[in-house]
Amino acid sequence: MKSFLAFTSALLLSASAMAQQALFNTQDLTSPEVNKDGTVTFRLSAPKAVKVQLNGDFLSKPVDLKEERNGVWTYTTESLDPELYSYTFKVDGLEFLDPSNVYRNRDIVSFTNMFIVSKAKGDCGDLYSVNNVPHGNVNRVWYGSPTLGTQRRMTIYTPPTYEKGGSYPVLYLLHGAGGDEEAWVSLGRAAQVLDNLIAAGKAKPMIVVMTNGNANCDAAPGEWHRGMYKPSFMSHNESPAKATTEEAYKDVMSYVEKHYRVRTGKNNTAICGLSMGGYHTYAISKLHPGKFGYIGLFSAAIHMGGNSNTPIDQRIASDPTVSGQFKTLFSAKNKPYLYWIAIGKTDFLYEQNAGLRKFMDASHYPYEYYETEGGHIWKNWRNYLIEFSQKIFK
Amino acid sequence: MKSFLAFTSALLLSASAMAQQALFNTQDLTSPEVNKDGTVTFRLSAPKAVKVQLNGDFLSKPVDLKEERNGVWTYTTESLDPELYSYTFKVDGLEFLDPSNVYRNRDIVSFTNMFIVSKAKGDCGDLYSVNNVPHGNVNRVWYGSPTLGTQRRMTIYTPPTYEKGGSYPVLYLLHGAGGDEEAWVSLGRAAQVLDNLIAAGKAKPMIVVMTNGNANCDAAPGEWHRGMYKPSFMSHNESPAKATTEEAYKDVMSYVEKHYRVRTGKNNTAICGLSMGGYHTYAISKLHPGKFGYIGLFSAAIHMGGNSNTPIDQRIASDPTVSGQFKTLFSAKNKPYLYWIAIGKTDFLYEQNAGLRKFMDASHYPYEYYETEGGHIWKNWRNYLIEFSQKIFK
Repeated sequence: MKSFLAFTSALLLSASAMAQQALFNTQDLTSPEVNKDGTVTFRLSAPKAVKVQLNGDFLSKPVDLKEERNGVWTYTTESLDPELYSYTFKVDGLEFLDPSNVYRNRDIVSFTNMFIVSKAKGDCGDLYSVNNVPHGNVNRVWYGSPTLGTQRRMTIYTPPTYEKGGSYPVLYLLHGAGGDEEAWVSLGRAAQVLDNLIAAGKAKPMIVVMTNGNANCDAAPGEWHRGMYKPSFMSHNESPAKATTEEAYKDVMSYVEKHYRVRTGKNNTAICGLSMGGYHTYAISKLHPGKFGYIGLFSAAIHMGGNSNTPIDQRIASDPTVSGQFKTLFSAKNKPYLYWIAIGKTDFLYEQNAGLRKFMDASHYPYEYYETEGGHIWKNWRNYLIEFSQKIFK
Repeated sequence: MKSFLAFTSALLLSASAMAQQALFNTQDLTSPEVNKDGTVTFRLSAPKAVKVQLNGDFLSKPVDLKEERNGVWTYTTESLDPELYSYTFKVDGLEFLDPSNVYRNRDIVSFTNMFIVSKAKGDCGDLYSVNNVPHGNVNRVWYGSPTLGTQRRMTIYTPPTYEKGGSYPVLYLLHGAGGDEEAWVSLGRAAQVLDNLIAAGKAKPMIVVMTNGNANCDAAPGEWHRGMYKPSFMSHNESPAKATTEEAYKDVMSYVEKHYRVRTGKNNTAICGLSMGGYHTYAISKLHPGKFGYIGLFSAAIHMGGNSNTPIDQRIASDPTVSGQFKTLFSAKNKPYLYWIAIGKTDFLYEQNAGLRKFMDASHYPYEYYETEGGHIWKNWRNYLIEFSQKIFK
C-alpha cells in the first residue's frame, strides 16, 4: 500500500490533477472543535468579511465571531450539555455553512452543520454517536401501495442480529410535516439510538419502519420521479392523493409482515410519531384497534375536526366516530399496554395535548404522560425516541 | 387533510413557531432553473456582495454573475449537453453553496450543488434521473470481515424484482481514493442508472455491491466509531489495517453469497472500479482467477510496484508473480468473457493504461478498450458504468 499512497499523494499535489476533478471548497481549519471541557470552538476563514456571526440551537441569539489573524474568525462557547447541536454561520448577512464541517442535516429546505457533545457513556450525545457496537442495517425499500396506487419508499432498520435469523417485533416510526422517510435516520439519529440501546440491553432488538407520511409524494425530495424540485413546508399537497396516510398505512404493514421476519400481535407491534406523525399515530392506532400494543404521541397534532373554538376534549367526546374509535381501542380485548403522550412545556401544541389528556382522564383511558422542557424541536423528539424505545416489547 | 393543512400553515406563519425549530436559510428564489432550451439560470440573493461568481464543471473558468435588482445576482449558461453537473458560487472570495438548491454531493471534503440536464429519453441525463420506473432497494449493510478483524459497511442495490424472488447475478462496484461506500450511489448515480437500464431492458437485473475500499476504516466518514472527523484525501491511512482491500475482498463475496440470492460462476459475477478501485479490480480479479466473467477497469491506477522509470508493460512482464497471475487469469478455464479497459484521453493515468494494454497485446490476452474525451472525472466514470453494465451477464 505504501507505493499506492505515494502515488495518490502525487495525484493530490499535482496542479494538473486539480483540474481533473472536484471543486475543492474546504479550508485548512478544524471547526467545530469540541474541547475536552465541553466548550466548542468555531473557526472560519473569511478575510474580506466585515461581520461574521454564529447561529445555533445552543445559543439564545446569534453571536459575533472575532477576527483573530489571517482573516480567521473564531468563537468559543461555554461548556455545553450532551446533545446533537445544529448551527450555521452568517457572513455579511448571508447564511453560510461551515466549510470545515462535512456533517450536515437537511430540515425541509434548510441545511445546518451539526456536532455532538457527549460527556459520559449513555448520555444522549453518546446515544446519538456511532459507537463501536454491532450495527443494524438501514435499507431504502420500495413497496407498492394499492390504496394510493403508487410505488413508495420507506426506510427500514433491521437490528444487528437480524441477518443471523429469528423474528423481531416492529416499531413504526413516523415523521412530521415537511419531513420524509429520511428524517428519523438523519435528524432523528434513529439507527444510532437503536444500535446503542440494543447493545446496552436497554431496548429489545426490533425492526424500525420509517415511512413517508406525505401521501401524495412517493419518496423524499430528489428520490422520486418528480425530480430535483425545491421542497417547501407541506409543498407535497400540490396534487391530491387517492387516500390519506392513515388509510393507506395497512399497505405498509402488510408489506413489512410479508417481507421481513416479524413477530405480530399487539405485544410485538408499536407505533409512534412526531407532530404530524403524532397525528398519524393517533389516527392509525384508532383505525387498527388491537394492532398496536405500544402507541407513542410525540408533540402530536391531535385533532383537526370541529370548531376550533371548542376545547379539544369536547370535540373528541362529541364526535361519535372518534369517541367510538377510542372506546374500541381501549376495550378489554384491544387496549394497548402503553399509550404514551410526550410534549414540551413550551410546545405550541401543548394545549391540544392537554385537551386529549382531559378527554382520556374523563373516559378513564389509561396513558402515560411525559413532559419536558422546550418546544417543538428535534432535541425533544430524539429524547422521546430514547424513552419510548426502552418501554416497548417488554 | 384540508384542516390539517390550515393548521400547519398556521404553524409556519406564526412568529412564535419560527422559534420552535430550524434555522431557515433558504431564499425565495428558483436556482438553478434548467430552461427548456437546455440553458440554465442561476440566481443568488446577496445584497451586500461586491462580486459573485459561479464555478462549475460546465464552465472552462469561473464567470461573474450580474446584479439584477434587489440584490439578486443571476447568470444564464449556454445550452448544455445532457449530464449531471456540479457547481458552487463564490461570494467575495468565499465558496458558497446555492441555498436555493438542496441537491448536493460530497466529494471527500468538498460539497457541490448539482443539477441534471436531459434532452431525450435514454440520454445520460435521463439515465441519472429518478424516473417513473420500478426501483431497486438500496441497503447499508454491516458485515464481519475476518481478514480485517472489523465490522464494515457496504451499500447493496437489489434490482426491482428481487423482493418477488429468483436469484441474480452480482456486480461488485468499487470507488476511488478519497471515496467510500456512498460514492457510487451519490456521485455515481448507480441506483438510477441500474433502475433505468433494467427498465429499458438494456441491462440484466443484477445485485450491485458497493464496498468501502479503505481497508483501515469501517465505513464512510461519520458512519463508524471514529465519529465526525474531517475527511481528507487518503486520510484513512492513519492506522494500518491488518490486510489490504484486495486480500480481504473474499470476506465481502462470501457474505454476499450467503445472505443474498445470488447466481455464482463467472457468467454471473462481475467486478469493476474507478481509479484506486480500478487497481482493486485489477488485483482482486488476479487473486480470484475464474471468479469474474466480466472485469472493468475505469481510469484504473494499474500497477504500483517496481521502478517507476521502467514502463508499466515491462514491470508487469518482469514480475513473475503478476505475470503468473495474468497467465492463470487468462487460462482456457478461467479467462473472462470481458476484460474492459476504459480511460479518458487527458486522464493522468492514460500512459499507465496504455502500458497495461501493451503488456496484454504482447501476451495475447484479449480485452476491450473504450477511450473517451476528458480526464479523471465522475462524468467519465458514470458513463463507463452505463457502458459496462450493458455488456455483462449476456
